[in-house]
Amino acid sequence: MTDNFIFGRRPVCDHCQPPFVDRRGVLIRYASGLVTLACITLVTMGQFAWAQKASAKTVRDYTSNVDPFIGVDWGGNTFVGAAIPYGLVKVGPDMESFDGRRSGFGYSSSGVILGFSQLHLSGAQGKYGNILVAPATGPLNLDDIKTPRINEVNQVGYYAADLTRYHVKVELTSSRRVGFHRYTFPASQQSHLTINVAHALGLGTTWQAQKFLGAEVHVISDHEIQGVARFSGGWNRGGEYRVYYYVVLDTPARAVRTWTGTILSDAGDAVVGDKTPADTPITTPIGATFNFSTKANQVIQAKVGISFISAEQAKQNVEHEIPAWNFAAVHAASKALWNTELAKLNLSGETDSQRRQLYTAMYHIMLMPTDRTGENPDWKSSEPYYDDYYCIWDTFRTSSPLLTLISPDRQRDIIRSLIDIYRHTGYMPDARSGNDNGRTQGGSNANVVIADAYVKGLKGIDYPTAFDAMIHDAEVPPANPQKEGRGGLRDYNEKGYITLADERSGSRTAEYSYDDFAISEVACGLGKPKEAALYASRAHNFEHLWDKNMTVEGFNGFMRPRNPDGSWAAPYLVVRGTWPDFFYEGDIWTYSIYAPQDMRRLIAMTGGNEAFVRRLDWTFLHDHFDVTNEPGFLLPVLYNYAGRPDRTADIVHMILEKDFTDSRGGIPGNDDSGAMSSWLIFSTLGISPVAGQDVYLISTPSIPEASLSLGNGKKLRIVAKNLDPNGLNRYVQSATINGVDLPYAWFRHSQIKDGATLVLTMGPAPSNWGKATPPPSMSDAGFSTCADLQPHNDATK
Amino acid sequence: MTDNFIFGRRPVCDHCQPPFVDRRGVLIRYASGLVTLACITLVTMGQFAWAQKASAKTVRDYTSNVDPFIGVDWGGNTFVGAAIPYGLVKVGPDMESFDGRRSGFGYSSSGVILGFSQLHLSGAQGKYGNILVAPATGPLNLDDIKTPRINEVNQVGYYAADLTRYHVKVELTSSRRVGFHRYTFPASQQSHLTINVAHALGLGTTWQAQKFLGAEVHVISDHEIQGVARFSGGWNRGGEYRVYYYVVLDTPARAVRTWTGTILSDAGDAVVGDKTPADTPITTPIGATFNFSTKANQVIQAKVGISFISAEQAKQNVEHEIPAWNFAAVHAASKALWNTELAKLNLSGETDSQRRQLYTAMYHIMLMPTDRTGENPDWKSSEPYYDDYYCIWDTFRTSSPLLTLISPDRQRDIIRSLIDIYRHTGYMPDARSGNDNGRTQGGSNANVVIADAYVKGLKGIDYPTAFDAMIHDAEVPPANPQKEGRGGLRDYNEKGYITLADERSGSRTAEYSYDDFAISEVACGLGKPKEAALYASRAHNFEHLWDKNMTVEGFNGFMRPRNPDGSWAAPYLVVRGTWPDFFYEGDIWTYSIYAPQDMRRLIAMTGGNEAFVRRLDWTFLHDHFDVTNEPGFLLPVLYNYAGRPDRTADIVHMILEKDFTDSRGGIPGNDDSGAMSSWLIFSTLGISPVAGQDVYLISTPSIPEASLSLGNGKKLRIVAKNLDPNGLNRYVQSATINGVDLPYAWFRHSQIKDGATLVLTMGPAPSNWGKATPPPSMSDAGFSTCADLQPHNDATK
Repeated sequence: MTDNFIFGRRPVCDHCQPPFVDRRGVLIRYASGLVTLACITLVTMGQFAWAQKASAKTVRDYTSNVDPFIGVDWGGNTFVGAAIPYGLVKVGPDMESFDGRRSGFGYSSSGVILGFSQLHLSGAQGKYGNILVAPATGPLNLDDIKTPRINEVNQVGYYAADLTRYHVKVELTSSRRVGFHRYTFPASQQSHLTINVAHALGLGTTWQAQKFLGAEVHVISDHEIQGVARFSGGWNRGGEYRVYYYVVLDTPARAVRTWTGTILSDAGDAVVGDKTPADTPITTPIGATFNFSTKANQVIQAKVGISFISAEQAKQNVEHEIPAWNFAAVHAASKALWNTELAKLNLSGETDSQRRQLYTAMYHIMLMPTDRTGENPDWKSSEPYYDDYYCIWDTFRTSSPLLTLISPDRQRDIIRSLIDIYRHTGYMPDARSGNDNGRTQGGSNANVVIADAYVKGLKGIDYPTAFDAMIHDAEVPPANPQKEGRGGLRDYNEKGYITLADERSGSRTAEYSYDDFAISEVACGLGKPKEAALYASRAHNFEHLWDKNMTVEGFNGFMRPRNPDGSWAAPYLVVRGTWPDFFYEGDIWTYSIYAPQDMRRLIAMTGGNEAFVRRLDWTFLHDHFDVTNEPGFLLPVLYNYAGRPDRTADIVHMILEKDFTDSRGGIPGNDDSGAMSSWLIFSTLGISPVAGQDVYLISTPSIPEASLSLGNGKKLRIVAKNLDPNGLNRYVQSATINGVDLPYAWFRHSQIKDGATLVLTMGPAPSNWGKATPPPSMSDAGFSTCADLQPHNDATK
Repeated sequence: MTDNFIFGRRPVCDHCQPPFVDRRGVLIRYASGLVTLACITLVTMGQFAWAQKASAKTVRDYTSNVDPFIGVDWGGNTFVGAAIPYGLVKVGPDMESFDGRRSGFGYSSSGVILGFSQLHLSGAQGKYGNILVAPATGPLNLDDIKTPRINEVNQVGYYAADLTRYHVKVELTSSRRVGFHRYTFPASQQSHLTINVAHALGLGTTWQAQKFLGAEVHVISDHEIQGVARFSGGWNRGGEYRVYYYVVLDTPARAVRTWTGTILSDAGDAVVGDKTPADTPITTPIGATFNFSTKANQVIQAKVGISFISAEQAKQNVEHEIPAWNFAAVHAASKALWNTELAKLNLSGETDSQRRQLYTAMYHIMLMPTDRTGENPDWKSSEPYYDDYYCIWDTFRTSSPLLTLISPDRQRDIIRSLIDIYRHTGYMPDARSGNDNGRTQGGSNANVVIADAYVKGLKGIDYPTAFDAMIHDAEVPPANPQKEGRGGLRDYNEKGYITLADERSGSRTAEYSYDDFAISEVACGLGKPKEAALYASRAHNFEHLWDKNMTVEGFNGFMRPRNPDGSWAAPYLVVRGTWPDFFYEGDIWTYSIYAPQDMRRLIAMTGGNEAFVRRLDWTFLHDHFDVTNEPGFLLPVLYNYAGRPDRTADIVHMILEKDFTDSRGGIPGNDDSGAMSSWLIFSTLGISPVAGQDVYLISTPSIPEASLSLGNGKKLRIVAKNLDPNGLNRYVQSATINGVDLPYAWFRHSQIKDGATLVLTMGPAPSNWGKATPPPSMSDAGFSTCADLQPHNDATK
């Protein structure tokens, strides 16, 4: 245990009473008492209290069900490395990539590792990869440190690989803001641990490349350096973000040297980029190297603290979160935190593959956004602060509803952060990363996130301010519509639609219509009938781009762009029947039927139930459905609105069969911060939230029994009777909820929020169940604005 | 054993000396001797000799590795039911389908079974589904016999399900020309076995629907009917095909009734369609029903013999192939036949999923084409007769080369059949079904099949006649280019390219060029230097559609259509950069680099190795590669021609990860008679044939050790050293073949034909192996027509 005292530091607590920490792992105060070895071992990080709580509650190790490699190839872009839930630090390998992206064909396609950086995204690309640690042996060539790896292992909170070029084994784990590295060296007179602070993923000059702006390296001792690295750009084209770091080793180095360019120097301080104008990219490498003479199997450990506030805070983060040098304990604490989260899902009768897929999906959902509370460099606030909303346009559909169900406190904090960002930047982001808003995708879908929380009674949220933020989205054209707010808003509010004068006029018109529906819901709840009526009327703006005479592949009525003068855009002869830049990540088949607020009306516009079912069939059979992007998330369940839950069952079942596996290429498109993963969980369980409404549609469970913990000690159990292993009994024959007959293929959140058991009796052929009363729509007979839009829960005002 | 004698029939052999049968299971003559029970049990079909041989050789049951449900959903269209290898009869369920196709979203998506018909395709749609047997209980409504099913099982040679509406269990097995049905009834005064002879899949009036032309039903006894049903059309738009049938039950019926329309009749003969003009579709149902009073669990069995010659022959087929009533023995014999085939592949170190995928792929490859020897209604011949080449355009790329490797005698017979079809119809088919040629897809790729066999030394083929057939393809414009031959041939031969006056001018020009290369190879081998030179020169015709100034997404040089006057077609603004009907099942990215005869030249046209690699990367990264269709089969391995086998390894590995699974949706596109499955086998083993050349490219094995039996007692073993379970060690570092260093990423058939061990030493990073000498191309320095095109084997002339 001597490693714990290597720098003469006192253990942070003196006996085994738990330290008081908040759930993000920040120590609040320490109890005092006698030192014990067990205590020192366990209290190596602030997560201790939570880890203890978790391990007391969970006898099962859910983390063994997670395979972090699922989705790393073919554009799933899931994170490889170690992180705690929502962890700021995500420490993991960066690969040499032939096309300037992290993964190209996938993580596994590059044989060569560059090193291990501290910040990453999951299910996304285009940002971070900062403060790269890389070991080496032999003569050091700063231009060429990369190495192949074998025996690569990634488990929850733990990464390991053998770096074959150097015969060094790497192991990684982490706390919230600290990456913990353990390197096992061979016998070598020239062993190095290099810290490259100019490194980032996707550096370059293209329009969404990251830019390296400058950095500082300061040698503090023979085992410590600290400094800052400054970057801007990346996928969200954000402004400068500063990554402060503090690196501390458990082993004094024979020499610590800095470098700029390719020149190693004995200077204790190195600086680049401080003379260049703001936001000017530079290409000068900068870093430091610790040199050692190592014996065979000598372990050298490093803790890399990260802060967005200061290097001093980075150092404090190390001291508070991981004061000792016990790698195993940090890993164990990370696992315990994950077990607490993963235990919210329980399955019975699932296949091995389903179990691996679903727990890995849970894991992926909780890697993003990033809890940056206490690390906001831009304003001081007592509110939680989250970054890496990447993007809400992806996650509002299924991720937010899932967190509202199983992690209401977390979702509350994420929303409070959104509102706080509105307070200080003027907008709730549609996407945000590196402390800057951007880029917008299709709508201002934080509106839907707020409404979803509101109608489901999520407490602890300042809804009046949230409502102000929604109105701001709906009324104030942004200076830079790629950054935040609603592009094309003036046309939208004046004409009722966006024209070809703005990009994505189709998808934006469709999504703003739904966003306005979300506003009207909250307006009703807050007692603002005038606003409720106004935005409810705007909820039908999508109809203004509906050309009932437009025919594609035998179907009549599609969204069609309008020219700035209001005339229809000229026909555009294309393979997939859409205009350039009219829609975003979805085609004319997908967006033309996107109106979850009023499917009744939309179905009528397509010619009625039968025509709508034919159109949906055609969409799926003729490859118009794009499983790799979020705009299609609701498509498979829309059959429920036309009285055909059996067809929903077919489609959902087969998408799961075909497009999701437990392999490295097992996520069909970019996981998008877990959006795909949350769709997978809901779809496998057989229910689908209609985000922004208190409604869930029933599709078809693929697992005999599953339950979700609801955060209030209650559970939602979903029991599928008569499920057969071949998946033939996919058609619901009858349903009960808490023992009461449920004749509809949908239910409300209020029916499950206090715990519920949904029993679905399955059979081999379609039945009449669920056909009669479709899920609610604004155009339902008797529907009136505030009476029906009034939330079905008493949300805290 | 009394069932064996239920109709007083004598057993077909009198002692347990094996009957003499050919390997298609046709009895040739019987030995005589004493009757034994064991003999009667075993000799229930002609396959006995082969079954016995198989079971003696194989202690392992390979059939348990096969899951016939792989690929049944999402358009894989693989067969569900029971069949022997290449079996004429493929007896299986037909489903109610909402879009007029067999599978729609997939086999599993319909809950309702119509009955069990005798003829099916696998990995294809649009033909057959004839002579539908369906049980029922209770009052019989001829319009509504369908039933949901549960507990469905499909194993090699065996299908079973519980039909929930009637509480009847169905079990199916088969011999080559006989479907064997076993129904277990409940206690019922009204039990029925119905035979619907008007049924077929995809009946209708659309241009590729099947047409029902007429049928006859003749009651022979209380347990026998026979007759004929006539159809035409279907996917290949073929002429009339006549399915003769003989149905015999093991249980005398209380009554046998016929029906036409919905009227049951006591008439012993029923006929429809005999008065209508030829090829006029009719819609009058016709069939027969056997009625019983059944006790609980009473078994009623039926044998349905099929012939394309006569009802009498259908009856003989039953009597020769399955003279007794031992269902288990028929199933066991079918399994034994399959074990003989499946035993040609052996794996070591594979995952469960890989084992299931690969043996199922073997199974799928051997369901088509169909061995119809002795069942050709159109001409008499001593040659083998195969039907359901569906299509050669799909199967020539990897299926034919696989059979040439592991089933040379089978491939010989398939080719002899092609040549015999040429003798009697004037053309080798590009596709053929229902005894009629059609529809052509892209080229006359039987040319490549012949060349592939020739350069690999396949014996027993009349190559001079095959050559005549190839020349016929190349020189004689067909009357109906959708049926056979080369559409656009006049332009192609006069101008060197096809123009927009003909459909698919791009893909046809590309493929005819390669077909001509194939002709030149065989010409060389047959000592025809003039023809060899002529067709070798035509092998570069693809260049005539190359517009070096055409730029798409930053890449220069693509195939571009020419107008009939030779001018370039006007630019066509489309999402994927291609013109309508210029290419078939592939886009401009795929076809523009399709020239396996001269990749050296093509790479030069694209700007050299580096530009070519960038273009391939772009193709894969930007979704221009279509894994669901065959024109892209070679794309992943084309990197080898540019010195980058490492990139080939990346792509092949990740396609396997992402697009092939062991689930019901596990085949990414239509299996196309096993074409996809054969690609899967080669790609998993790490080698890829270049069809029509004696060349295999090395990609990356995904299994530590695999072997293929070569049909001559020898094996090709592929050993991948250092493979790691995460698939990271995918890069070949060095290779040996039979212990001799192999520095190239390719080898010739002559190097393995007498058995070989290919050892690939794998590593985690790309190496220099295989970079120096790319696979052969016509434009290689020093290449001259007959010297280099001369086959590297001494094929039998």
